Amino acid sequence: MRLENIFGGIVMGKLVKNITSILEDFSKWYTDVVIKAELIDYSTVRGCNILRPYGYAIWENIVSILDKEFKNLGVENVSMPIFIPESLLQKEKEHIKGFAPEVAWVTLGGNEELSEKLCVRPTSEVLFCSHFQKIVNSWRDLPKLYNQWCSVVRWEKTSRPFLRSVEFHWQEGHTIHENSQEAKNFTLKILNLYKDFFENILCIPVILGQKTESEKFAGAEITYTVECIMKDGKALQSATSHYFGNNFSKAFDIKFSNKNNKEELVHQTSWGLSTRVIASIIMTHGDDDGLVLPPDIAPIQVIIIPINLKNKLVIEKSHEIFNIIKNKLKLRCIIDESEQTPGWKFANYEMKGVPIRIEIGPRDIENNQCVLVRRDNHEKIICKFENLSENIEKLILDIKNNMYKTAQKNQENKTKIFESEKDFENFKGFIKMPFCEDSECEDNIKQKYAFTTRCIPFDEKIENNYICPICGKKAKNYVYFAKAY
Amino acid sequence: MRLENIFGGIVMGKLVKNITSILEDFSKWYTDVVIKAELIDYSTVRGCNILRPYGYAIWENIVSILDKEFKNLGVENVSMPIFIPESLLQKEKEHIKGFAPEVAWVTLGGNEELSEKLCVRPTSEVLFCSHFQKIVNSWRDLPKLYNQWCSVVRWEKTSRPFLRSVEFHWQEGHTIHENSQEAKNFTLKILNLYKDFFENILCIPVILGQKTESEKFAGAEITYTVECIMKDGKALQSATSHYFGNNFSKAFDIKFSNKNNKEELVHQTSWGLSTRVIASIIMTHGDDDGLVLPPDIAPIQVIIIPINLKNKLVIEKSHEIFNIIKNKLKLRCIIDESEQTPGWKFANYEMKGVPIRIEIGPRDIENNQCVLVRRDNHEKIICKFENLSENIEKLILDIKNNMYKTAQKNQENKTKIFESEKDFENFKGFIKMPFCEDSECEDNIKQKYAFTTRCIPFDEKIENNYICPICGKKAKNYVYFAKAY
Repeated sequence: MRLENIFGGIVMGKLVKNITSILEDFSKWYTDVVIKAELIDYSTVRGCNILRPYGYAIWENIVSILDKEFKNLGVENVSMPIFIPESLLQKEKEHIKGFAPEVAWVTLGGNEELSEKLCVRPTSEVLFCSHFQKIVNSWRDLPKLYNQWCSVVRWEKTSRPFLRSVEFHWQEGHTIHENSQEAKNFTLKILNLYKDFFENILCIPVILGQKTESEKFAGAEITYTVECIMKDGKALQSATSHYFGNNFSKAFDIKFSNKNNKEELVHQTSWGLSTRVIASIIMTHGDDDGLVLPPDIAPIQVIIIPINLKNKLVIEKSHEIFNIIKNKLKLRCIIDESEQTPGWKFANYEMKGVPIRIEIGPRDIENNQCVLVRRDNHEKIICKFENLSENIEKLILDIKNNMYKTAQKNQENKTKIFESEKDFENFKGFIKMPFCEDSECEDNIKQKYAFTTRCIPFDEKIENNYICPICGKKAKNYVYFAKAY
Repeated sequence: MRLENIFGGIVMGKLVKNITSILEDFSKWYTDVVIKAELIDYSTVRGCNILRPYGYAIWENIVSILDKEFKNLGVENVSMPIFIPESLLQKEKEHIKGFAPEVAWVTLGGNEELSEKLCVRPTSEVLFCSHFQKIVNSWRDLPKLYNQWCSVVRWEKTSRPFLRSVEFHWQEGHTIHENSQEAKNFTLKILNLYKDFFENILCIPVILGQKTESEKFAGAEITYTVECIMKDGKALQSATSHYFGNNFSKAFDIKFSNKNNKEELVHQTSWGLSTRVIASIIMTHGDDDGLVLPPDIAPIQVIIIPINLKNKLVIEKSHEIFNIIKNKLKLRCIIDESEQTPGWKFANYEMKGVPIRIEIGPRDIENNQCVLVRRDNHEKIICKFENLSENIEKLILDIKNNMYKTAQKNQENKTKIFESEKDFENFKGFIKMPFCEDSECEDNIKQKYAFTTRCIPFDEKIENNYICPICGKKAKNYVYFAKAY
């Protein structure tokens, strides 16, 4: 295997060019990172992007970790069809209202017009429901805890890599239960699984809560959400978990005979997380040198750069270190022995967000040491060879902690308790406000300031006498508002 | 996690009903197995099947093993768009000729008619080509070894689970190289990877060879194929590897500057394997009791069935054994403690093709032993507890060897050297015949007997004076003929 070809990053002749700085133009910085770190290439199809090897490897790592977690909860993977007949999509009324405007329709098969048009799935609730209806009879068949990894299609007019696209990859979980309590508990169990994943794996702090009526999923009774704040102060809805109650089971007649031999409707959930998380990672951790990847999902965790390629000792030592890191520490590691200059290589792997860089030159060999460079804070650490394993293991933990803390500081700085309506004009971030939860008032704020409700946070009850500062009615809860992606 | 719900197989009240016997009606037997082993459910969309947890788990195991093998060769995964614009699909003439009649077209997005219709990818050559054209400049950028795991759509008029369906899952590899020799070598390297996978993992013997001109892939210069013979004597093309030469790189202008700084076209390959392999597994190994799964891809490798659920010692011992098998031997194992009768359970896991069943009753405990039952030949083995690990590890190997040998015997019995044209009327299997390779003669045989050329086998050169027994012209090679799925 030629190292030059791994993730296409070490190709001669191409330079790692400067990217726009975050402060200059956040949106351009984002696009620069996505393209220059070789995560995505645009295709000839509007809104459909190509996930290049480096971008896809990040998604593969995310999938592999989450898939294990789901399976630990007893979730089983299945595969539902790519197409939904129009009549099937129309069975749940709220659902079709939400999705109809944004689906792609297949109307021709070969050269023949279809008698019923088929949409390319925008989400698969109705497919799961019609299958559940067939396979469930008794309480003994419950729960069914299903998930699928696939891509879905939404006919978006505008698109931005990872944030909004016509086709995107995701997982969609669909479960059915005997009673509402069990279903609600499962919805929350998954929400907490997402939270742990964001905090412990992606080093991203989150706000958990419930969506308001107008922001919940088409067909859901309750939508819970994982909200993150980006470096520019915009919120990103990063995962959701829905409780459907009986809405779909009524429409699809999904009944079972309970322990008393009486027919009941099942209680249902669905939950999903998509390649949008990659946008979350980029905009939470990235800096003016490019991507900064959380170690657990980085395709390359350690990059070794020999400083003098003609020095045999340097090359030997590089391979020795490589073997330790790969085989003993089980980390994803490569050596870059290509003909590019060290400076080019440093910039390239910084752009790609590789958490740890190891530099080894002839003088290091003499001193029985190498240099470790952290991507998160650019710190350089002189490391004696005998301490290498220990130092790298510690460094990975330090990097994760520091990434989380830095992101948490950003979240704190970009969150404020509502003081006056001027906040909606001046503040970039989460505004926490006692809110009436009236959809007219909500719409009003949205129209005027482009701030939307992000969630009603858990466990932050307000005093009984609080009022909504916008309309003056009684406030029900604190609600987080933000401009959102 | 409730064991009752694993793969939905242990649900009370549903009986494992008898299936049609192989000799009575092979085709019905096949469908019975697919449905009753809960691999597939039909969906409301014609030709699109649901892969149920047990069926999808088989595919996941196949994916996981092959993906590692591909990555060991330096192959990187990517994701190409689901849609192909009509104009892009038309760029390579042979290719569009082959695929146009069988694609699904998206003509509406939301409520608007599209200015150019998009087909749902039937295969992704043209998408890879237009990406390669953008990212390749110099010989230093080569080779690119890409693969994607996805589903594709072909507008088939008739469909059969795993064998032929409108949507199916597969992997499609696409590589580009500096010169034809390297590309041809890679095509063959992948062919051999497939061969090893079939023989060592799936326990299925194969015939490797080259497709005749009329049977090769639309746009390919050479198509290599992995052909298997099923229990009913019909052939199943189970994987293919294509050498494209410059056909696509010409059409898509994929050029690079070589070491002498001159522009050249890249040389290209593509190769794929789909959920069709599951049909191959079923029809190679299955019997009148249902599926027989090769141990390496079986979702459950060992099923433990305690014979008396009320006996504490039996339950304790079952869990002890479970821990050894799961944690020490690292095999996929479950205990079935559901209320079904042991007889029902035996039949259920036989239907599902679980390679090893362990029965433990009170008397076994007294004798410090359990009973191991092989799925492949129904043999029962009394096993002392102290020999359990050792016996199970040996048994897995024995089962694999026996499955391969049994399949090989079937292949031998169903392969014959051509004697007379009557063979095409009477024989069910591969007929090996010196053949002119004239497409008219080939078409003739196809029309008359429904036998098609399967492949020109490697390393089986014929004598110079052989003639084609059908048309009397000079024979070029031995060619395998068969009726095929």
